[in-house]
Amino acid sequence: MPFSVRIKVRFGDVDPAGLVYYPRVFHYYHIALEEFFAARCGISYRDLMAEERIGFPTVNVRAEFYAPFVYGDEVEIEAFVSQVGQSSATFEYSARRVSDNMICASSTNVHVAMNLDTRRSVPIPDKYRRAFTDSAA
Amino acid sequence: MPFSVRIKVRFGDVDPAGLVYYPRVFHYYHIALEEFFAARCGISYRDLMAEERIGFPTVNVRAEFYAPFVYGDEVEIEAFVSQVGQSSATFEYSARRVSDNMICASSTNVHVAMNLDTRRSVPIPDKYRRAFTDSAA
Amino acid sequence: MPFSVRIKVRFGDVDPAGLVYYPRVFHYYHIALEEFFAARCGISYRDLMAEERIGFPTVNVRAEFYAPFVYGDEVEIEAFVSQVGQSSATFEYSARRVSDNMICASSTNVHVAMNLDTRRSVPIPDKYRRAFTDSAA
Amino acid sequence: MPFSVRIKVRFGDVDPAGLVYYPRVFHYYHIALEEFFAARCGISYRDLMAEERIGFPTVNVRAEFYAPFVYGDEVEIEAFVSQVGQSSATFEYSARRVSDNMICASSTNVHVAMNLDTRRSVPIPDKYRRAFTDSAA
Repeated sequence: MPFSVRIKVRFGDVDPAGLVYYPRVFHYYHIALEEFFAARCGISYRDLMAEERIGFPTVNVRAEFYAPFVYGDEVEIEAFVSQVGQSSATFEYSARRVSDNMICASSTNVHVAMNLDTRRSVPIPDKYRRAFTDSAA
Repeated sequence: MPFSVRIKVRFGDVDPAGLVYYPRVFHYYHIALEEFFAARCGISYRDLMAEERIGFPTVNVRAEFYAPFVYGDEVEIEAFVSQVGQSSATFEYSARRVSDNMICASSTNVHVAMNLDTRRSVPIPDKYRRAFTDSAA
Repeated sequence: MPFSVRIKVRFGDVDPAGLVYYPRVFHYYHIALEEFFAARCGISYRDLMAEERIGFPTVNVRAEFYAPFVYGDEVEIEAFVSQVGQSSATFEYSARRVSDNMICASSTNVHVAMNLDTRRSVPIPDKYRRAFTDSAA
Repeated sequence: MPFSVRIKVRFGDVDPAGLVYYPRVFHYYHIALEEFFAARCGISYRDLMAEERIGFPTVNVRAEFYAPFVYGDEVEIEAFVSQVGQSSATFEYSARRVSDNMICASSTNVHVAMNLDTRRSVPIPDKYRRAFTDSAA
């Protein structure tokens, strides 16, 4: 079953044109990443950082915005991992408007496992690698 | 001469891992877009919206993050238009760390001219089309 | 029963010192205001703006921060109206850390009913006035 | 001479009601705090954190919003210290709209010197205390 998280568009997310400011959509995707770890990897993103000193910064983004979100929309972000490398993982995010089930935006992001102290990439620990692979099933 | 704008990384832009939160980099690119209009198109982005009822939402993003920005960095965003269509324009953004001249991030964004009242795409007015084309020279 | 809403501290809310960047706490309070309208006033804040052309901008803030929130915290924001004037209402917000029930921050905000077209203050409609008064009971 | 810094209201700072989202004004005040350190205390806020392991989180806010900022406004934030205690300092911020010289917002914030490792308050080092006191002259 694909992982997903529901997010309400907030007043402060919307720009003067009445649409969600597009950098905020990347913030939504990051929330999905955080929740994915808690739900599928058996560790909160906080503990991943604090205890294992690992983070997953974004190094590559391929994003589409098909239709804008507006204030009042509820958004369902689905996330799964389409590819896992030695130290990087490709997350596929899609953002569906709940009211009419329309996919309004999507993004393919490459995240790299990084040691937070050395700020260098590290191999993805096996336990997360498995959870990543399983998310696409 | 390419258009560019200088931005200081602020305390509030940086995440608990000590790096600029990546959605903020898209905010930086948007600041460059706003300043590009004022400097090259003879109209502020505000007046474009208020008087001509036109905005340029982002519909496609191809972004790379080569090295993270950190708190204290000064960033120079360069912007030019690589392609102009009927109602869309492709902006090329690059983000250079001023201290060592290193390009740390870049993005190719497709922006669509949109009427803010109908929220439908409109042809790019000729005066802006010319400014867009000139920016790549 | 007091109104409250639960908010998770997100990675993007936290500053490089490891604490929630204090302007974000005001964003949390605004989320509580938005949810208060939906739950207690019979109208979403979106519809209030779109259909009645009324907003409630903040004109006065008295805020305390007793202890910082950190990444991973869950926060319960409680909100009620302590005073209702002709066109203004005083909202009392408190932010409780769920893990240990500690009130970490609070704020007393005066919001003014404003017509969004004229940007002038207007009398608070009776139906909302009643909901405001009831919230303190 | 009072310290001040100039900030442009950005598209992403403005809410769907067309006004600067009020938490963003606190972000502007924080930018003024950061620049104040660089200009008056002989140390960037970044180095203060990195080298001296000291930050100045906000513990108390008394803010007024007299008139809203809108997209396109340029804002001059003036900052000085009105009171210095053992480990806390009271900063007075005012936000002036450059176009007509009108003070649109102001805030009195108490900041506490905090050791970033222990997260406990520490005495304000004498060199900063002097700079704080001088700022009010």
